[in-house]
Amino acid sequence: MGKLYKTQTDLILSNIGKHITLNQPEIKFFLSLLKFKELKKKDFLLRAGEPCTTFNYITSGALRAFYRDVNDKEATIMFAVTDWWITDMPCFISQKPAMIHIEAIAKSRVLQLTKDDIDSLCIELPKFERFFRILMQNAYIREQLRVLQNLSQPAEVRYNNFLEKYPAIAKQVTLKNIASYLGITPEFLSVIRNKLRKGKFLNLP
Amino acid sequence: MGKLYKTQTDLILSNIGKHITLNQPEIKFFLSLLKFKELKKKDFLLRAGEPCTTFNYITSGALRAFYRDVNDKEATIMFAVTDWWITDMPCFISQKPAMIHIEAIAKSRVLQLTKDDIDSLCIELPKFERFFRILMQNAYIREQLRVLQNLSQPAEVRYNNFLEKYPAIAKQVTLKNIASYLGITPEFLSVIRNKLRKGKFLNLP
Repeated sequence: MGKLYKTQTDLILSNIGKHITLNQPEIKFFLSLLKFKELKKKDFLLRAGEPCTTFNYITSGALRAFYRDVNDKEATIMFAVTDWWITDMPCFISQKPAMIHIEAIAKSRVLQLTKDDIDSLCIELPKFERFFRILMQNAYIREQLRVLQNLSQPAEVRYNNFLEKYPAIAKQVTLKNIASYLGITPEFLSVIRNKLRKGKFLNLP
Repeated sequence: MGKLYKTQTDLILSNIGKHITLNQPEIKFFLSLLKFKELKKKDFLLRAGEPCTTFNYITSGALRAFYRDVNDKEATIMFAVTDWWITDMPCFISQKPAMIHIEAIAKSRVLQLTKDDIDSLCIELPKFERFFRILMQNAYIREQLRVLQNLSQPAEVRYNNFLEKYPAIAKQVTLKNIASYLGITPEFLSVIRNKLRKGKFLNLP
């Protein structure tokens, strides 16, 4: 566990170090809060209806957050791979039952903080307000850009943007899941991929 | 201007006071950064393509943020009334040209902060990190809930929710704009309103 622990904590500390600087006692306090969790492929990190108690940082693997409607139709809300954070934010903050499922689409490892942990961090080390402010800001911006892109770009451009923006995700998820993220059918995504391939616009994964 | 200035600054200080506590010198510093702007109905606070330089707090009136596509079709991104904040966040943060328009749909007054103002605030008064963290968190949650609601609820439920959640907005904006926010045609919204009226489900504005 020693080496694995260090690899995982180095990753999360470097993620945090992008925005704030921690000294040794602060690092120690932060690391003392983390829970470690391993997921096999197809394990659920969260199921709709259950309490959403953790904010999760991914140290390896890939996860998919999706909504399943009454007809069992799934809509992919987001993907997350190594060095991303994921939760059902509205339910994590309100501490209400989750609305979405989060499933491991590959063997994954995550580090977890509870809402109490985040509250303690922000009280004990107010510089974490800055860290979480930037995290929330980036998440909001990502959602806004996705809404605008859905309104303004045809599906092939959105698929192309997805490949360029999230190459690590594109490599790990199925075409069905990508189609569901883009809000199109898998059949339509196949048509797009064939078109792009013939046009030699890009190297498809 | 004295009384109007006080009404407006009281409003924004009470908005901030929901999340952080400022002492007198801090209040003075914060107020010194604000710019005041008045908009007539149909004035643009921001036009797509122009630099997005301000984060805007509304002290009176109502604004609408929308995207206009190449065919001049408009999609309403958000509304904002008294005590709300509005900007084109991705472009405000990246300092790139705006992607959306923000128009006053009634005579409006806003207080403005630039990105430099926000950076100064967070450096001089780090407690503002907390304030902006909560603002960003709420904005992200609002967007997530909207995405989930669009996936999970029929249009009449979404219209009903809109009326319940944003009564102040529903009173001030046109049905055409509400339809565009809900992602449906104005004709379909009329059908929904007639249906709801007959069913006496609610008091429509």
